[in-house]
Amino acid sequence: MSNDRETGLALDPRYDRDGLITAVATDVATGEVLMLAHMNAQALAETQRTGLAHFWSRSRARLWKKGEESGNELVVEEIRVDCDQDAVWLRVRPKGPACHTGERSCFYRRLSGGERLERVLGPGS
Amino acid sequence: MSNDRETGLALDPRYDRDGLITAVATDVATGEVLMLAHMNAQALAETQRTGLAHFWSRSRARLWKKGEESGNELVVEEIRVDCDQDAVWLRVRPKGPACHTGERSCFYRRLSGGERLERVLGPGS
Repeated sequence: MSNDRETGLALDPRYDRDGLITAVATDVATGEVLMLAHMNAQALAETQRTGLAHFWSRSRARLWKKGEESGNELVVEEIRVDCDQDAVWLRVRPKGPACHTGERSCFYRRLSGGERLERVLGPGS
Repeated sequence: MSNDRETGLALDPRYDRDGLITAVATDVATGEVLMLAHMNAQALAETQRTGLAHFWSRSRARLWKKGEESGNELVVEEIRVDCDQDAVWLRVRPKGPACHTGERSCFYRRLSGGERLERVLGPGS
């Protein structure tokens, strides 16, 4: 990786072979990780332009405004970039549950040892 | 994706074509996102077994215990799994700066509009 990318102050995303970087969204109020998704250059540009999180849907192969159907948009307060610029951290205010299952976070289960999970958030929490 | 994977209580990671899932680590004390990396099955198993974050280094193509050289290990308090089980959230207590640059988080710059970044954390912070 170039040193400029790490130490410089120019945005220079390191897109992967599919043209994507990883994006993690956390709730500015609670610090909770809400979801993890991917962005192409257009998704990043639309997020900057509109102040609402946009991602690239790998399964549907199209740009996707988070909440475009559910209304559960993520209002972006800050976009951070990591050292090698292949990931961004979105600090957001969610307008509703971030997960398509209705949970406020996609991370509603924890590993409880071995291969078992246990719920941390209940349905609708 | 299978419904079981979303609603069930069995660990069933959805590894990508490279055998990896994405892992995001946050500081349990501050909620700050520290770093983002990747895990294969072995890295996840070693993380569970030892309580210290292990990742798969894509650049070096080998298992990597975070802090194996620097001593800046991440003590894992909780491992969360997301809805479709292609990402994990590690809630950790860092033993030192998480970033190889010496910053406490890899996300030490924010987008300040357009293509410009600005530092949020100073060197050594």
